[in-house]
Amino acid sequence: MTQHRVVVVGAGFGGLFATRALRRVPAQVTLINPTTYHLFEPLLYQVATGILSEGEVAPPIREIFRARRNLDIQLGWVTDVRPDVKEVIATGLDGKERRVPYDSLIVAAGAQNSYFGNDGFAEHAPSLKSIDDALEVRGRIFHAFEMAELADDPVERRRWLTFAIVGAGPTGVELAGQIAELAQRALKGQYRHLPETRVVLLDAVDRVLPAFDHQLSEKASRTLAKLKIDVRLGTRVVDVDRTGVTFAGGERLDAYTKIWAAGVMAPGLAGRLAEATGARTDRAGRIVVEPDLTVPGHPEIFVVGDMAAQNLPGVAQVAMQGGRHAARVIAGRLTGKPVAAPFKYFDKGNMATISRFSAVANVGQLHLSGLLGWLSWLGVHLFYLIGFKNKVSTLMHWTVSFLGRGRSERIATTQQINARNALHHLSADDQHRAVGVVQQLQNGRSE
Amino acid sequence: MTQHRVVVVGAGFGGLFATRALRRVPAQVTLINPTTYHLFEPLLYQVATGILSEGEVAPPIREIFRARRNLDIQLGWVTDVRPDVKEVIATGLDGKERRVPYDSLIVAAGAQNSYFGNDGFAEHAPSLKSIDDALEVRGRIFHAFEMAELADDPVERRRWLTFAIVGAGPTGVELAGQIAELAQRALKGQYRHLPETRVVLLDAVDRVLPAFDHQLSEKASRTLAKLKIDVRLGTRVVDVDRTGVTFAGGERLDAYTKIWAAGVMAPGLAGRLAEATGARTDRAGRIVVEPDLTVPGHPEIFVVGDMAAQNLPGVAQVAMQGGRHAARVIAGRLTGKPVAAPFKYFDKGNMATISRFSAVANVGQLHLSGLLGWLSWLGVHLFYLIGFKNKVSTLMHWTVSFLGRGRSERIATTQQINARNALHHLSADDQHRAVGVVQQLQNGRSE
Repeated sequence: MTQHRVVVVGAGFGGLFATRALRRVPAQVTLINPTTYHLFEPLLYQVATGILSEGEVAPPIREIFRARRNLDIQLGWVTDVRPDVKEVIATGLDGKERRVPYDSLIVAAGAQNSYFGNDGFAEHAPSLKSIDDALEVRGRIFHAFEMAELADDPVERRRWLTFAIVGAGPTGVELAGQIAELAQRALKGQYRHLPETRVVLLDAVDRVLPAFDHQLSEKASRTLAKLKIDVRLGTRVVDVDRTGVTFAGGERLDAYTKIWAAGVMAPGLAGRLAEATGARTDRAGRIVVEPDLTVPGHPEIFVVGDMAAQNLPGVAQVAMQGGRHAARVIAGRLTGKPVAAPFKYFDKGNMATISRFSAVANVGQLHLSGLLGWLSWLGVHLFYLIGFKNKVSTLMHWTVSFLGRGRSERIATTQQINARNALHHLSADDQHRAVGVVQQLQNGRSE
Repeated sequence: MTQHRVVVVGAGFGGLFATRALRRVPAQVTLINPTTYHLFEPLLYQVATGILSEGEVAPPIREIFRARRNLDIQLGWVTDVRPDVKEVIATGLDGKERRVPYDSLIVAAGAQNSYFGNDGFAEHAPSLKSIDDALEVRGRIFHAFEMAELADDPVERRRWLTFAIVGAGPTGVELAGQIAELAQRALKGQYRHLPETRVVLLDAVDRVLPAFDHQLSEKASRTLAKLKIDVRLGTRVVDVDRTGVTFAGGERLDAYTKIWAAGVMAPGLAGRLAEATGARTDRAGRIVVEPDLTVPGHPEIFVVGDMAAQNLPGVAQVAMQGGRHAARVIAGRLTGKPVAAPFKYFDKGNMATISRFSAVANVGQLHLSGLLGWLSWLGVHLFYLIGFKNKVSTLMHWTVSFLGRGRSERIATTQQINARNALHHLSADDQHRAVGVVQQLQNGRSE
């Protein structure tokens, strides 16, 4: 009899921790992921603001599982699931389609960014869900400071120095706080017009960090106010274009740099899995699962993390614990030691860091804020950061960025600048010339 | 009477050290550079092989000169010089053309990559002169290992696992050494087919590191042999295409990954400066300067570093010392304390690192190799690396990479993968599908 085959879809927190937990299970595990790396999403905003390098938040999967025996890592993108023949269909990095058979399946494809049907916004307001996003946002932020330096027209300069962030959840709040820190501290003395910088944090809801306890939202608001961040709640964004955003009611905000941290939705795979299994999905397109995280009628298929409809926040902890749970249930079945089936989430709490030395966190009944909250934030993120290398270099970069005031990871590629210029950040005429400049740069000239 | 105006063109080693040396000079300094950062070119190959992050070899100019009083930094690309009216013409990042007046001018625009007239090679064999180059080469190297993993056809796999490096100077030798280390040590156990990796180092000349002492070339060859690197000297490359390179005589080498480390030439600005001043240029297009590095007939215009035709190697030290010399001469004129005019280069020696713990260096009469050479290489590069932050994080990454065996900076963006696929690394058909995959990724999905 051949060995039990487990296929894990996605190397995010859910898939990674499921794969880890399958280490000593008598099964052949296949992990399928479109990128070579696991992404530590909670720190993407630090890549975007020049604190960390992309490598520090994206450890290579092959390095994480280097010594692993029963694991096969396949680079590809899962397009469909066939529960009838127990296969997943994956398109490899080489463009070839492959059928991967499974006995047990763990689907952890996470969530993707949602512009609530206005995908056209993406061109002007990138989100922060991938390494590419983070490097693009980084490029736009530092590009804006440089362009403001060159602008003679005060109106233009104001547009370059106004940063609009849509969405006041953890990502939006952390991003706003870091951009304010850049202007008020980290880049101090490096540009003439920095003091004119305005950071505007927008959300349709009535408080920041809605997923958090009210008390902590209050504390967060006060910290944001201290950083002179213009927080506009109950404000719905109805349009995003090259020069700014438009609110319901017609009010405009001029800003060349817009970042979208508003909504997420289930990836396309969720819909296809629902079709194939007859499972129901919720409004966000997530799969409605059984208490043990399996798909109704398919005890061999688990859905964990952001792809599963649970009354739980879309945070790393939920995915990690869900992934581990699925692995334990499978292990229990194989070793004849069944596991208590229903998945119970142990809430270790939420946290968000607003500026250096200041974060908010609720750990169970405990509410932390200010320095204490920040220290716990520091500890938790270091603890969960995968890989010794990343822990060490991240701690080093944090020391430099928080105690000192440098931002050592500020690089934008000319490829990005080129793409940005093509996005009409410039008049067609200037654009033409600028693209010329950039092409010169790409030829390696430094004239 | 207004203050003396010094314009420095380029923030490479020449321009950076000239600007530094002008710190206490009673003059208004304007530094014009197309990128926001100074590039530590000697370590680009480590960015390309996953050891260092781009931020570590590219400190922001504004941070280097943060506290500086008499300095204005302009982001732009100098297109022309007008000695008659004492102005340089620069196209800014915003595409606008600006005229910048000078009393003294230091031109340090460096060198650009040369394909000896075959610019078509660039598409298939990127060079290693910019951050974009380094990230592109990094992407291609790690992409190749992944594609080899997916390839069923042994011929395809062999093409993916063959790396052809054209040019056996320091860059080529160091790159070859590091790719060999990746396959033999750093990535060990992470891919099934690593042992099939072949690194081929090509050059038309008859020895490696031709700029070095013969004895050291010998030692270098032996180290390359130990690393099983296939060194082919006296081999002229006449064509580079998608699947490999062709040599004079018609012999072929199949390799999907090609890197061009062969030649450099003066940037376009050199030609325009020569035209405007009537200066002569050498075969590489470099300006023939007076012994004091000024342009004949123009004592107010200095040309330093790779742009000047001197019988000196194109290394950082020559540019640094040249830049400092120009600054001293200008300072001397302004303070009435003339400086001994002729530029004398103090040769601190050459060095190249071939693999961890093994480098070759000649310091004056002294020849070092092996561990001793490597330690001196380590010290010198740390010493000259700009910025405390970069020294610390680089040392940390070196410790991890050389003592441990990790490569923590392996990220390629999907933007790059997309571009690469478009370069026909795949059949038109597979390409179409692969680009689809990549677009899904760019939408932030991780299915």
